[in-house]
Amino acid sequence: MSCGANHTIHRTHRHFGWDRGIEPVLRIAPGETVELECIDAGDGQLDRSSTAADIARMDPGRVNPVTGPIHVDGAEPGDALRITIEAFRPSGFGWTANIPGFGLLADQFPDPALHIWSYDAQTLAPAAFSPVGRVPLKPFAGTIGCAPGDPGPHSVIPPRRVGGNLDVRDLAVGTVLYLPVEAEGALLSVGDTHAAQGDGEVCGTAIESPMDVALRIDLEKDANLAMPRFTTPGPVTRHLDAKGYEVTTGVGPDLMENARAAVSQMVDLIAARTGMNPVEAYMLASVCGDLRLAEVVDAPNWLTAFYFPRVVLE
Amino acid sequence: MSCGANHTIHRTHRHFGWDRGIEPVLRIAPGETVELECIDAGDGQLDRSSTAADIARMDPGRVNPVTGPIHVDGAEPGDALRITIEAFRPSGFGWTANIPGFGLLADQFPDPALHIWSYDAQTLAPAAFSPVGRVPLKPFAGTIGCAPGDPGPHSVIPPRRVGGNLDVRDLAVGTVLYLPVEAEGALLSVGDTHAAQGDGEVCGTAIESPMDVALRIDLEKDANLAMPRFTTPGPVTRHLDAKGYEVTTGVGPDLMENARAAVSQMVDLIAARTGMNPVEAYMLASVCGDLRLAEVVDAPNWLTAFYFPRVVLE
Repeated sequence: MSCGANHTIHRTHRHFGWDRGIEPVLRIAPGETVELECIDAGDGQLDRSSTAADIARMDPGRVNPVTGPIHVDGAEPGDALRITIEAFRPSGFGWTANIPGFGLLADQFPDPALHIWSYDAQTLAPAAFSPVGRVPLKPFAGTIGCAPGDPGPHSVIPPRRVGGNLDVRDLAVGTVLYLPVEAEGALLSVGDTHAAQGDGEVCGTAIESPMDVALRIDLEKDANLAMPRFTTPGPVTRHLDAKGYEVTTGVGPDLMENARAAVSQMVDLIAARTGMNPVEAYMLASVCGDLRLAEVVDAPNWLTAFYFPRVVLE
Repeated sequence: MSCGANHTIHRTHRHFGWDRGIEPVLRIAPGETVELECIDAGDGQLDRSSTAADIARMDPGRVNPVTGPIHVDGAEPGDALRITIEAFRPSGFGWTANIPGFGLLADQFPDPALHIWSYDAQTLAPAAFSPVGRVPLKPFAGTIGCAPGDPGPHSVIPPRRVGGNLDVRDLAVGTVLYLPVEAEGALLSVGDTHAAQGDGEVCGTAIESPMDVALRIDLEKDANLAMPRFTTPGPVTRHLDAKGYEVTTGVGPDLMENARAAVSQMVDLIAARTGMNPVEAYMLASVCGDLRLAEVVDAPNWLTAFYFPRVVLE
């Protein structure tokens, strides 16, 4: 990559799940930069010729591989890593799936579905979704995490206070991410690269896309950090917002049920407006629509809103 | 106001709580525009000389008055109102309070606090918060609702499927809001005008500010609308996002607890960085910071994020 990293970790050095006992593939001093080759969240089991039928054939033991781990000299429990996200080299290939049993509306969409994306890795021009829709891209790493302090294996799926599968759309170029350290050496790994995702990742997948990632890794001693936090260098939604939003809402006493109601109504709205199948609308919503909490104080009812960027369909 | 409304409803025509039995103050045909004078959510009980001690003296029976109701000819249950938000005439005065027992972190902030705002109603230049901070303004109506179909009185505090105290920051100029109709004539009322608010309204109040509102009200027959929805004509956060965001997160299995963790950490961060009292940081966060749901699918842990716009402190 163009950033001139101090080190490169190839995609063969990947692991499945977190474990502080996994031997580091690289040891660095704080302040060094590392390039990581990241395979997609399906570990390469899907390609441009894949169909929905291939989803059932995927090995669940190979989900969400992460490249690493990196041992950071001097990192100890109670410290934090300060990770500057410097660059991505996207591949141009991606996929979005509805995986049975997974996703916010898993009960409404029991059948597998797959969309294969092809995008321009140089220009990152909005990617075409068939039959309609063009999705602005913003590459980021869905999974950036340190090893949990508790010994033994841990699932890669849930995010934790040490990071992991955060799936935060704004962990993009220029963002500075702070992660608590729980294991000696921090043991940082990265994966699950996405070409685009909306806040919520509502169908359970984004534009899952292999990508190389360049990070600068610094150490903050005794940071006393409870949870991950980050700083963005500028606006986070200007690639999406030029034409405003269609917004659906869920109003009621449970934030998750509200989210489900808002997304379900948006799926209906997109499907009615475009003629897409509902599951296509659901997958499209996942890669560009944002879940927001408009109010969480007017008891007993809270309001969750789903913002779908109009530019995608116009 | 400049928009040339067909009708004006003065602030004396306000009511407390929803009730389909309240006599309309105006009857209109679909397609007409109405200007409504809206008093603030404290019904004018606070003014530029008020202090935190005045919060305990407020009459809770006078909270969140709404101007109206407006009877829309031909509106029947099953229809929807299409409400185009045409203009605001802000007053230049506002207040933000921490009200004991109310707000996302009510347990952490048991004591009343009050900030009085003065802003330029013509230019809407960012409003100064003492001792530091300048908050970009975006006037909107916190409460826009139709009368519930169930007879009798209903609290004004919770939002409902017919709208009401939605507290959606983007119900601003140009937005088109669709509300389900449950009562004959719809019986629309408006109030709780805000000069600024972040998504979440985390301390329970915004920049509460009296304002006049102009709306165009249309009718969609047999709209089959489950919950409120709206369309924004353009970007929704460009007044806030130029310098990016500081972002804190809550990671865990409960979205509300995650929201509490994220906001609590942001309060600590703002207080540490600026020297503000924590309750001041909490009130500032409420008027400009946004709660978002970064992921709701990586079971068993979801990620709620609180975005504080850096422009406010820079």
